[in-house]
Amino acid sequence: MADERVAALKEPIDVAEYLFKRLHEVGVRSVHGVPGDYNLVALDYLPDCGLKWVGSVNELNAAYAADGYARVSKFAALITTFGVGELSAINGVAGSFSEHIPVVHIVGCPSTISQRDGMLLHHTLGNGDFNVFANMSAQISCEVAKLNNPAEIANQIDHALKTCWLRSQPIYIMLPTDMVQSKIEGARLATPIDMSEPENDPEAEDFVVAEVLKNLKEAKHPVILVDACAIRHRVVEEVHQLVDKTNLPVFVTPMGKGAVDENHPNFGGVYAGSGSHPAQAKEIIESSDLLLTIGALKSDFNTAGFSYRTSQLNSIDFHSTHCIVRYSTYPGVSMRGVLRKVIDQVDPSTLSAQPSPVVENEVEENLDDSPTITQAWFWPRVGEFMIPKDVIITETGTANFGIWDTRFPEGVTALSQVLWGSIGWSVGAAQGAALAAKDAGNGRRTILFVGDGSFQLTAQELSTMIRHKLNPIIFLICNDGFTIERFIHGMEAEYNDIHTWKNKDLVKVFGGEDTCKTFTIKTKDELNELLADEDFQAAQTLQFVELYMPKEDAPRALVMTAEASARNNAKLE
Amino acid sequence: MADERVAALKEPIDVAEYLFKRLHEVGVRSVHGVPGDYNLVALDYLPDCGLKWVGSVNELNAAYAADGYARVSKFAALITTFGVGELSAINGVAGSFSEHIPVVHIVGCPSTISQRDGMLLHHTLGNGDFNVFANMSAQISCEVAKLNNPAEIANQIDHALKTCWLRSQPIYIMLPTDMVQSKIEGARLATPIDMSEPENDPEAEDFVVAEVLKNLKEAKHPVILVDACAIRHRVVEEVHQLVDKTNLPVFVTPMGKGAVDENHPNFGGVYAGSGSHPAQAKEIIESSDLLLTIGALKSDFNTAGFSYRTSQLNSIDFHSTHCIVRYSTYPGVSMRGVLRKVIDQVDPSTLSAQPSPVVENEVEENLDDSPTITQAWFWPRVGEFMIPKDVIITETGTANFGIWDTRFPEGVTALSQVLWGSIGWSVGAAQGAALAAKDAGNGRRTILFVGDGSFQLTAQELSTMIRHKLNPIIFLICNDGFTIERFIHGMEAEYNDIHTWKNKDLVKVFGGEDTCKTFTIKTKDELNELLADEDFQAAQTLQFVELYMPKEDAPRALVMTAEASARNNAKLE
Repeated sequence: MADERVAALKEPIDVAEYLFKRLHEVGVRSVHGVPGDYNLVALDYLPDCGLKWVGSVNELNAAYAADGYARVSKFAALITTFGVGELSAINGVAGSFSEHIPVVHIVGCPSTISQRDGMLLHHTLGNGDFNVFANMSAQISCEVAKLNNPAEIANQIDHALKTCWLRSQPIYIMLPTDMVQSKIEGARLATPIDMSEPENDPEAEDFVVAEVLKNLKEAKHPVILVDACAIRHRVVEEVHQLVDKTNLPVFVTPMGKGAVDENHPNFGGVYAGSGSHPAQAKEIIESSDLLLTIGALKSDFNTAGFSYRTSQLNSIDFHSTHCIVRYSTYPGVSMRGVLRKVIDQVDPSTLSAQPSPVVENEVEENLDDSPTITQAWFWPRVGEFMIPKDVIITETGTANFGIWDTRFPEGVTALSQVLWGSIGWSVGAAQGAALAAKDAGNGRRTILFVGDGSFQLTAQELSTMIRHKLNPIIFLICNDGFTIERFIHGMEAEYNDIHTWKNKDLVKVFGGEDTCKTFTIKTKDELNELLADEDFQAAQTLQFVELYMPKEDAPRALVMTAEASARNNAKLE
Repeated sequence: MADERVAALKEPIDVAEYLFKRLHEVGVRSVHGVPGDYNLVALDYLPDCGLKWVGSVNELNAAYAADGYARVSKFAALITTFGVGELSAINGVAGSFSEHIPVVHIVGCPSTISQRDGMLLHHTLGNGDFNVFANMSAQISCEVAKLNNPAEIANQIDHALKTCWLRSQPIYIMLPTDMVQSKIEGARLATPIDMSEPENDPEAEDFVVAEVLKNLKEAKHPVILVDACAIRHRVVEEVHQLVDKTNLPVFVTPMGKGAVDENHPNFGGVYAGSGSHPAQAKEIIESSDLLLTIGALKSDFNTAGFSYRTSQLNSIDFHSTHCIVRYSTYPGVSMRGVLRKVIDQVDPSTLSAQPSPVVENEVEENLDDSPTITQAWFWPRVGEFMIPKDVIITETGTANFGIWDTRFPEGVTALSQVLWGSIGWSVGAAQGAALAAKDAGNGRRTILFVGDGSFQLTAQELSTMIRHKLNPIIFLICNDGFTIERFIHGMEAEYNDIHTWKNKDLVKVFGGEDTCKTFTIKTKDELNELLADEDFQAAQTLQFVELYMPKEDAPRALVMTAEASARNNAKLE
């Protein structure tokens, strides 16, 4: 019967080739992962499908890197081996699930025959259960595809990839060793996977649009607030058209940073309740009688510890799966169609558009007499160093909060993990981001800000950057450990200390001695000089900057959020 | 009501203190893990409970280290934070589950109030589900204890610790921030947890003992084979008494190595089917008419690719949960009680005990004219370097197979992960093992054998070793990548290559410049000289040896097992 099935195929193709050609079609060029005996044969297929194997240093770093790659490109892929490899990666993939990043996780696993026979194989729990790891990953994947039956595999792959894109979350593909070379229908590849979003029901959509227009017209101080899911569900272009057409003030949340051109005259800064910057952002938003939120994700760290003082009664919320107008919810009405029609139909002359606050990198205002580099001064200062289209990665910790005070140039892509917040993520993500930029060939710079505590978790990702000749600029904030934790609990506690490393010597250890540059920066003047250096600006090679800052200094927004977090952890009934 | 409950306590004690005092009671002295805001307050309690905080470089390394610690000590504990931390560790804990190692995994998690209210907190999936990670860990834990109700917590902790010990597998303890300082009954601590194993039903046990004795008496060539679960379920002493009393030949499997004193005259070597060493081990076992297996675990890599040629008809199997005499299974009859009675009742004069083959470190036999260090020569050679009570850790890869040809001195504890086989494990495990030896204060040396491919995954564990002034001897086998994978598939494939590091310079990066020693060894003579050096032997500081061996050389047992593995992966119906 298997022979008959194969004989009926118009263009027989091996499963691995089909899968990898689909990955190439959706935009993947480099694949992260670690080899293992259950995935080796599949890896042979990568080069001929136009895919480069990264050869990651470990699976968690690979997953972090895939996450970063997808945030800069569109899709990313990660290949691990059964049990040991996939579980090492699972925290990274969970982060992509939490933060809505489309990553394809392919797990090479024992053959369907070994599974059926319950063989006592290495990389198993020794209990004959071959589904246990897939069941774990199902919790952090929007689709699980077990490629066990050649007759179904092409459909499974296409459907999973579409789901990955539309949900903007990871999928999990289980590829048994005996399926890698099974023949399936290659003729399907002539037709690209249909990635288009389903349209809203037109009547429901028109109803919501009318509600939005009516409310807009009646409002005295309408404002727009753009959050993470505007980026993740790809309505950034619609956002800009809406701002241009309506001339309304527009703000971003911390997770929404990068969604709006921060040089746009209507850009009013970062709104995060009491952590807002500039302070007028808070006043304008909280006194507005109509707040249009786009892709809102009101997590603790995205709101400076739930410090929003806004009312649902004055809000219209646009989401990928529904819209809410004041207290009326419209399930199944996705924001994209609504936004498009609002843009088309709104009459700007009927709107009351107030001016936005001026947003600048406030370097002078945060200058003091000391040579010490302070958090308050640093973040606006690096804002001046950034150029259009830079890719900026900030680590959970001081960087994720400091960056609220940085005004970006146009076209910056900002990567952070404000919701999932896994320390060490940014180092892997920076590798993936830099690789995506290189694969795209558009010369974008990649700039990473990471603390010395977080860096230790994933430091060997530097090796992968050097191996692939990537040119990120890495600012390693040397402040003796876990500063964000100190501000939550244990300012002087030993558990918030780290072992001191000679960090920049890692570049040599990983073979970058002749090709990369390292710097030690301890004063404002040294930093000013470095940032003004044209060679440094040009970022033609990996540049690693040890940047010394005081241990007990933190961005103002972090101090505020950490206090709220400590209160919440300790709260009793 | 809460007040009444607390008022009724004889000796009120905080939950964290109770938990940590119980950990101390069962033998834990150092706790691995990474701080995170949901566990910080709990960490404050460690010092006063006699526990040292390790401050691991990342959670996966911490889990590997806890696994190593428990293999040398008795119990180990690991503390992570909700979501991000625990998932980073989950592969390490899964390894402990698969390989039967008692590790207590404590996860600091959001308060019960935050959980109840489904708050959108950092380190969550953003979906209000606070049980999703516990559900994942339930798959790789023998008990899950969610400490949500103070009235139940002391019972939960005691029961979970007992289960951890008796099942010799990990437990998962979820500790919400608002429970850390809840008061529970401290008076319970006056009574240690009852860790005794349940007795077998005496009638069933006597029946099995009679069957064993009858079969032993009738057998012409009875032999004993000791495997992993003899170590894990702690019948090593019974094994030695049985051998001494019966005078039967005794063999170990690869996972059983270390269970038997290899200088004992009855020790006959390693049985692993066609991978056995010496070759007579295979002949004697497979021609025996009664094979007593103790704690058997017949996984692929433990049997050189399922190459056993033994028959159940000639076997008696002793397990922790049941015994099997030929084809008769006795569920619920645990090996310990049976072994004890067999030892007491067997009459050695009625037994036919054949001599064991002579086992030696065959250095001369594997010598060749070249200065190159070969796998064949190396493993017996280091056997001569080992001293009684050494702790030996071998990584999945060449080391795990090479060690089959090493005869250990008395009292060696051998750590390997033959079943789970997660690459990089051994570096973390070596740190944990060395720390356990240091905590015990008995001066045991810790010796690690790891390949340069595996080392890259977890290299920063060197930092933890240096931070805690541990003195392992580390042999880093520099052979340009994943040799075990090359022998399975892709001898020349790029995906089995690694980026070349200046490995020994990591010692400097991690602050060991003045206190540690590094060596580069490329020839047999250089190695002989190093191993003969008394300072090196004394192991007074961390010693890191780069040991160069050919890329396409592998131990004989690995070649054999890899071929079997490749065949199994490719097998079609």
